[in-house]
Amino acid sequence: MNVSRFLLAGLALGAAGVLSAKIVTKPVAYEHAGVKPGVLVIPEWWGLTDYPKGRAEQLAKLGYVAFAADMYGAGVTTLDPKKAGELAGQFYGKSLMADRARAGLDQLLTTGLVDPTRVAAIGYCFGGATAQVLAYSGAPLAGIVSFHGALVPASAEAAAKNHAKFLICHGAIDPFVKPEEVTAFMKSMEDGKFDYQFINYAGAVHAFSNPGADAIAKTTGLPIAYNAAADRRSWAHMRGFFAEIFKAKK
Amino acid sequence: MNVSRFLLAGLALGAAGVLSAKIVTKPVAYEHAGVKPGVLVIPEWWGLTDYPKGRAEQLAKLGYVAFAADMYGAGVTTLDPKKAGELAGQFYGKSLMADRARAGLDQLLTTGLVDPTRVAAIGYCFGGATAQVLAYSGAPLAGIVSFHGALVPASAEAAAKNHAKFLICHGAIDPFVKPEEVTAFMKSMEDGKFDYQFINYAGAVHAFSNPGADAIAKTTGLPIAYNAAADRRSWAHMRGFFAEIFKAKK
Repeated sequence: MNVSRFLLAGLALGAAGVLSAKIVTKPVAYEHAGVKPGVLVIPEWWGLTDYPKGRAEQLAKLGYVAFAADMYGAGVTTLDPKKAGELAGQFYGKSLMADRARAGLDQLLTTGLVDPTRVAAIGYCFGGATAQVLAYSGAPLAGIVSFHGALVPASAEAAAKNHAKFLICHGAIDPFVKPEEVTAFMKSMEDGKFDYQFINYAGAVHAFSNPGADAIAKTTGLPIAYNAAADRRSWAHMRGFFAEIFKAKK
Repeated sequence: MNVSRFLLAGLALGAAGVLSAKIVTKPVAYEHAGVKPGVLVIPEWWGLTDYPKGRAEQLAKLGYVAFAADMYGAGVTTLDPKKAGELAGQFYGKSLMADRARAGLDQLLTTGLVDPTRVAAIGYCFGGATAQVLAYSGAPLAGIVSFHGALVPASAEAAAKNHAKFLICHGAIDPFVKPEEVTAFMKSMEDGKFDYQFINYAGAVHAFSNPGADAIAKTTGLPIAYNAAADRRSWAHMRGFFAEIFKAKK
């Protein structure tokens, strides 16, 4: 079997502010067998920890060219919610959020391994919101998947620029996302005529897909928890979504 | 390949009231190759039209023992919303709803073709609500799937009796189901610790899975419409759900 596996992790991008300019790429497994669908993986607000790297690896094993972006640069990670809030806070509501993610996407695209018409972005928590914003910026994405992401309502301008289909995998009782935020987000999707799916998973809270969430909850006191069923199901839903969007673009 | 296909359509069950007592079964394709997962199909408020029969046939082709129930008895169908409302209205809020569906389920189980630990019910509109209520009654179901169904919040008693996992496939802008009904339903699922998934499909209204919905909308003026993407995706989600619940019961 001729399998193409390619994964880049640890991309650190130049930027103003606290973030230093540096590019670190780490090819993991690579056999060239023609271009493949590409998937950009955008981490939680903790930065490029082992968790998003592991997701990129899983995707590479499925035959995608997976690329885990380092939004903070220089491999900065933290498990301190205050620090994470500061780091992620630099991006929310600013063009830097889409720009930084776009730099990661461009790295993925310039590998030459990726079919540029079959590219998706996925993201976790902060990264889920970033994937939404990247799509809103008009990035050439067939789709995005947000796992327990913050929800950023789409503006009319975003709707006009967007090319991506949306899959939102949401913890039904995520205390970080208020019911009125869900309502406002879905309304903006409908108003902008987005092609989206919004899935609520039973009993799931923030960070439901991260097997390390319980340990983090213990040290930080954050109301987050791993949920095996929601993790397994959302991953399966992502795979079905990819099958659809990457087939349509063939 | 040794494929077991078995489908029963046109079951008419005895009942009081306007519904006559009669059983009509119609085996369609059948090769015995051991017991299989079974799926009860519960029609829209139009009764046992070609649409649910076609769904049962699709399921039979996938290798399930599918059984389309005639909730009204004697093959009564209508495309008149007033008449349909009267027919369906006999069931809502009454034990007859679960009882009638249970009689259909029992027919399916007594075929001897079905693994009794791997049985699901699916339903459309009125039938989706019926599938929920059947599960609430404690019926031996591994799961239920509701397609653009009315939403019946689960009581504490229902939660105590229920064995089924729930997959709710919902039109995001279904005008027949108010946002506060969605909220109340999901709250009851959480309160009752149900294992559920609630999926909203973009731009989808009532009857989104029925290719005949547009024609019915034309003659009736009802705000219903077919939505090809929501139809395709909800069917795929059902298949993934079945793969999970039937595997777990093996």
